[in-house]
Amino acid sequence: MSAADSLHELRDALRVFAAEREWDRFHTPKNLAMALAGEAGEVIEHFQWLSPEESAALQPEQRAEVALELADVLLYLVRLADVLDIDLADAARRKIDVNAARYPGDKSRGRSDKYDRL
Amino acid sequence: MSAADSLHELRDALRVFAAEREWDRFHTPKNLAMALAGEAGEVIEHFQWLSPEESAALQPEQRAEVALELADVLLYLVRLADVLDIDLADAARRKIDVNAARYPGDKSRGRSDKYDRL
Amino acid sequence: MSAADSLHELRDALRVFAAEREWDRFHTPKNLAMALAGEAGEVIEHFQWLSPEESAALQPEQRAEVALELADVLLYLVRLADVLDIDLADAARRKIDVNAARYPGDKSRGRSDKYDRL
Amino acid sequence: MSAADSLHELRDALRVFAAEREWDRFHTPKNLAMALAGEAGEVIEHFQWLSPEESAALQPEQRAEVALELADVLLYLVRLADVLDIDLADAARRKIDVNAARYPGDKSRGRSDKYDRL
Repeated sequence: MSAADSLHELRDALRVFAAEREWDRFHTPKNLAMALAGEAGEVIEHFQWLSPEESAALQPEQRAEVALELADVLLYLVRLADVLDIDLADAARRKIDVNAARYPGDKSRGRSDKYDRL
Repeated sequence: MSAADSLHELRDALRVFAAEREWDRFHTPKNLAMALAGEAGEVIEHFQWLSPEESAALQPEQRAEVALELADVLLYLVRLADVLDIDLADAARRKIDVNAARYPGDKSRGRSDKYDRL
Repeated sequence: MSAADSLHELRDALRVFAAEREWDRFHTPKNLAMALAGEAGEVIEHFQWLSPEESAALQPEQRAEVALELADVLLYLVRLADVLDIDLADAARRKIDVNAARYPGDKSRGRSDKYDRL
Repeated sequence: MSAADSLHELRDALRVFAAEREWDRFHTPKNLAMALAGEAGEVIEHFQWLSPEESAALQPEQRAEVALELADVLLYLVRLADVLDIDLADAARRKIDVNAARYPGDKSRGRSDKYDRL
């Protein structure tokens, strides 16, 4: 794949990938939502017995494994958005605006009780 | 946020967002992995009682809700990759190449038994 | 382990198991909640590409694998409740009563829109 | 529900509950696996911003909320096992035996690297 980091380009690449393998029939939103959750579960398994400090100091090998797990989450997420005809980049921008209004910088500073979203 | 759909720009926007609120202390990889899994769980709840066909024909209101849930997943995913110093776009490209080698088009066509990754 | 199917006996067996291995230090509620979610993710991976009908007709080998995954979920769930000093059997009975009041039989019959809890 | 803490009694109670509401049609293994993962995601959301120490010292109100979330996980788990005709108590006993063989007390003591299962 080319060096772009665009969500739209990633979406297009995955469309071609699925079409070439005739996998569209398996790519219902229900199935892709399950795949997304399954991959998120694999991410969490890397961190479950680590202290917060250890989680921030992974060994190179484990960090490389986690990178590919995060990629799996992203690929299913992009594909799920696509089959639902949701513009993921647009939704992310809108969600950041929602969060900015919900958590004003001066009132949310350093408070975890004000914190349940990015 | 601007109209770009770049993962790097999204990463940068979230860095600023967290810094302005002094939330970096909460953004350990362990905590962000949990947040990611929690949001994936919210996505799945939208689809759990729907048939595969119903999941592909959401009403506009539910589709709009799902869009924001997918955004939540993306925001935590981008933030998690950032605090781990993982280039998410690069990892996604590498994972697509891995998958292309693992599932050659001619041998994987239309077979769900050959199918456990994108 | 003996043949009882009691949640309290299971809790006690897991207490001994953890103590013998000096694993209590790893068994914080935070860590066990992660382990629970990770195992739930493994369960879901067994079903993600199956149709609802296929999911109800597993081959014996896959059914045996799923059985051990369900056991993993149960073991972490029982252990998590224990370290939180929550009586899981009591909570389950209370939740069934809550659900019975929330979904009266005559009004909820056969309606998935009335359905988001057991 | 009566005061028993038996998994078999819980299974039987949930069977009646689903039958009275004609919910069996929604209770495919695929759907129940999703519901299980969704509830596990709700559990994790309670703990994601807490330190391990804070997670072990919940306030009474949050502890009561978590108790009902754990109950939700248990109810879906028991129901999922039932529709798959899996004896959950038996599977749990077998898994404990597997774990005991895999993690002998003298070699696993206090080592998180030997630790990825109960």
